[in-house]
Amino acid sequence: MNISQRYQLSLALLTDMYQLTMAQGYWKKEMQEQEAVFHLYFRSNPFKGGYTVCAGLEDALDLLRNFKFTEEDLAYLKGLKGSQNQQLFEDGFLDHLRHLEFTCDVDAIPEGTVVFPNEPLLRIKGPILQCQLLETPLLTILNFQTLIATKAARVVDAAQGDNVLEFGMRRAQGPDGAISAARAAFIGGVGATSNMMAGQLFNIPVKGTHAHSWVMSFDEEQDAFSSYADVFPHDSVFLVDTYKTLDGIKKAIEVARQMRANGSELRGIRLDSGDLAYLSIEGRRMLDEASFPKVSILASNDLDEHLIQSLKLQGARIDTWGIGTKLVTAYDQPALGGVYKLAAFRQADGEWDYKLKLSEQLIKISTPGILQVRRFYQGNTIVGDMIYSEPLEVNTSGTMVHPNDPTQRKSFSKECHYEDLLVPVFRSGKQVYDSPALGAIQQRTKQQLSLLHETYRRFLNPHIYKVGLEERLHDQKMNLIIQLRKKEQNQEA
Amino acid sequence: MNISQRYQLSLALLTDMYQLTMAQGYWKKEMQEQEAVFHLYFRSNPFKGGYTVCAGLEDALDLLRNFKFTEEDLAYLKGLKGSQNQQLFEDGFLDHLRHLEFTCDVDAIPEGTVVFPNEPLLRIKGPILQCQLLETPLLTILNFQTLIATKAARVVDAAQGDNVLEFGMRRAQGPDGAISAARAAFIGGVGATSNMMAGQLFNIPVKGTHAHSWVMSFDEEQDAFSSYADVFPHDSVFLVDTYKTLDGIKKAIEVARQMRANGSELRGIRLDSGDLAYLSIEGRRMLDEASFPKVSILASNDLDEHLIQSLKLQGARIDTWGIGTKLVTAYDQPALGGVYKLAAFRQADGEWDYKLKLSEQLIKISTPGILQVRRFYQGNTIVGDMIYSEPLEVNTSGTMVHPNDPTQRKSFSKECHYEDLLVPVFRSGKQVYDSPALGAIQQRTKQQLSLLHETYRRFLNPHIYKVGLEERLHDQKMNLIIQLRKKEQNQEA
Repeated sequence: MNISQRYQLSLALLTDMYQLTMAQGYWKKEMQEQEAVFHLYFRSNPFKGGYTVCAGLEDALDLLRNFKFTEEDLAYLKGLKGSQNQQLFEDGFLDHLRHLEFTCDVDAIPEGTVVFPNEPLLRIKGPILQCQLLETPLLTILNFQTLIATKAARVVDAAQGDNVLEFGMRRAQGPDGAISAARAAFIGGVGATSNMMAGQLFNIPVKGTHAHSWVMSFDEEQDAFSSYADVFPHDSVFLVDTYKTLDGIKKAIEVARQMRANGSELRGIRLDSGDLAYLSIEGRRMLDEASFPKVSILASNDLDEHLIQSLKLQGARIDTWGIGTKLVTAYDQPALGGVYKLAAFRQADGEWDYKLKLSEQLIKISTPGILQVRRFYQGNTIVGDMIYSEPLEVNTSGTMVHPNDPTQRKSFSKECHYEDLLVPVFRSGKQVYDSPALGAIQQRTKQQLSLLHETYRRFLNPHIYKVGLEERLHDQKMNLIIQLRKKEQNQEA
Repeated sequence: MNISQRYQLSLALLTDMYQLTMAQGYWKKEMQEQEAVFHLYFRSNPFKGGYTVCAGLEDALDLLRNFKFTEEDLAYLKGLKGSQNQQLFEDGFLDHLRHLEFTCDVDAIPEGTVVFPNEPLLRIKGPILQCQLLETPLLTILNFQTLIATKAARVVDAAQGDNVLEFGMRRAQGPDGAISAARAAFIGGVGATSNMMAGQLFNIPVKGTHAHSWVMSFDEEQDAFSSYADVFPHDSVFLVDTYKTLDGIKKAIEVARQMRANGSELRGIRLDSGDLAYLSIEGRRMLDEASFPKVSILASNDLDEHLIQSLKLQGARIDTWGIGTKLVTAYDQPALGGVYKLAAFRQADGEWDYKLKLSEQLIKISTPGILQVRRFYQGNTIVGDMIYSEPLEVNTSGTMVHPNDPTQRKSFSKECHYEDLLVPVFRSGKQVYDSPALGAIQQRTKQQLSLLHETYRRFLNPHIYKVGLEERLHDQKMNLIIQLRKKEQNQEA
């Protein structure tokens, strides 16, 4: 179930005010049908990492498919007043919105693809008024899900094949923060969630047994365990740290013996506090000595990829990792700085004008054109991505230029094969792409990460994957920058 | 419009799986009607600050009012399988959920109240099965909105009376992250949002003019400004940094002159990059010299309370602060660690058993009882909060004990007046409290912050506001800890 079905409201007003004021401006200046191209991209990998996993496209497509202003939306807009207490949005403009239908072409990188800074994740081409209104919700959806899928991929990587569960709902940024995070975390490789609504909506496996309150509602910890085992003889994981962890483990073993006598097996114990390295090693020893080698140990308590890595280095005997707050909020970097920039605008005469936003910093200057990303493979690894502009002929030598340092160039050998990452998802407002099932997207992430040399996946100072601008595109951009700066100087003079 | 109206789905499954497995456990053990008391509280102020502003209650009440499992929810639960591929939730239990009605008593601290660590923001008393199911969504809603209201209050405090706008939707954690954040930021004191849906839902003032793309869709920056002024003669704020900021300001002044000649006034310019201190001082000088002293300067670009404070110290001439990412994600601490702990459980004989969760750290041991918070005032400032348990007689001297250091005690002078912070919001499942209008909640925040001595409001090493346990409650807690630890020792021996 996608985003437009989750919400009762039309999502047309899920946008910033200035998109609507600009839209009225384009309409009033009769520019509303002029074609524009915008790219959605980010400028650096989150978490100081070496890669990013894109996610959120299915919700974004759903939003586009259902883009429609309702009478309720228009009534709200009609009621807004300007500084002179005048009606801010004109009736004619509101009528334009009333009949507005989505007609753009959209190309996007499929979910679960490994992506890098400066690469358009989504390209939208169509009437500028429509592109403009959609900027904010596209960013909201893709920024957040991409952020969380990336965080999850890192956590799963650190867990080296152990199970990873997401159970951060209570600390998520609102209900939809929890729901979107559960979806994206699954894309990143997490095996299950505690979030029942995400389970219901997306058919993600759900997991969970009991909390401290269950133990506290019995006079004796051991009674709490055996009562739980009565109810769930085949699905019990006991939380053993309500009072004193090692005592809790002893009691869990007692109950596991009773269970075995009754024909069932305890599935696991859970540690939620204390020294997880020490307690898991001790717990494993106690369980093994008591002939419960298959009882697994689940650990939680503010874990993230760095703590998992550290616990592994300490020899912790943890089989399943429960990750909450740090995953669903992407705690160490809670926002991906994705942007959405105008890159081309078609003049009345039908010619494209290429557009960029200047900045003192080269890295913040947007790239003009109608962009595509060509990814090069050498055997089973990916070796570089070349951003090129479709209207330009791509240079045959395959040379690309570093986006922020024109002195660095790279060419790909003729043996490399390549693919273009952006695929058509909408044509003239009609969806032409079916989102894969969520499980298939998770598989894609796994396969994509396997294409990436491990030096790009390490957490500290990862190797920087090469993304460049195709030579002609680079030249076009440089010429445009010089031209704009010259114009500014002439005006100053 | 509250949360249950925003979502099409019932929110009964907006919870963690283990709440439902425990619920089946309570039901199966015939404990489901036994009365419990849970408290929702946090253990430290966010952002290393000296206070917290609570928010989210209206959505929480809405969730409780609409708490109901639908047939769709039950069908989902019925389909879940255990490890032996057996139906995990029994038909009898699902039937219990089908007829479940919310019957609890709830007390809560009104939104916009200044609160401190260890104080229950919400207390729920009723059948343990109901209290348990509601743990996760209550935490999700109150944790996030409290976090953002607090962040907003800090930002507004730093702005010293200047206007503050929230416009973080594009970087928010999903659509509801943006919507909930806009509501909570308004409670914290922000004057307006760019989020149209929040405007529509909550009647928050909305603001916004144009982006870089507007400027880029014209050949000349000055044409972009004058075109915008044509459309919005009385509501124009020009973004001046698309190419070169000081040149942009010159062009804005040119257009402001044309506007004045045509009978309207430019409202402001906006700086979104570069050295905001230098550019705002220069911009102010240029505007003043051109006889535009009333054209305001709006600044944005990853601002937060610390940057605002720094810019003010540098003499920046900024009138309006646009705050995005850092506010709506609470970037430097994106989660409030609120918890929900069982504190009392009524035995079959009608007697309350007081409950706590042990921990090696005193600060992590929960407080048993049925708690209320008494706040003491000396003149126009608040001087300390005493947590007491309603079933215990409150000591007449008003002595309270530091929650984590029993050697520290504090008494209040007889001249102090006091009030109890938790108010009844539900009785026997019926709502008995009307949430104030959002504007009134914002006013309450302002008034509450004025009761707080400024030493508690500073950002670096704020003074610690005194919150203690009433003496008898403290003694009860200590006795219970000693008793539980003794029991553990006896079992070990």
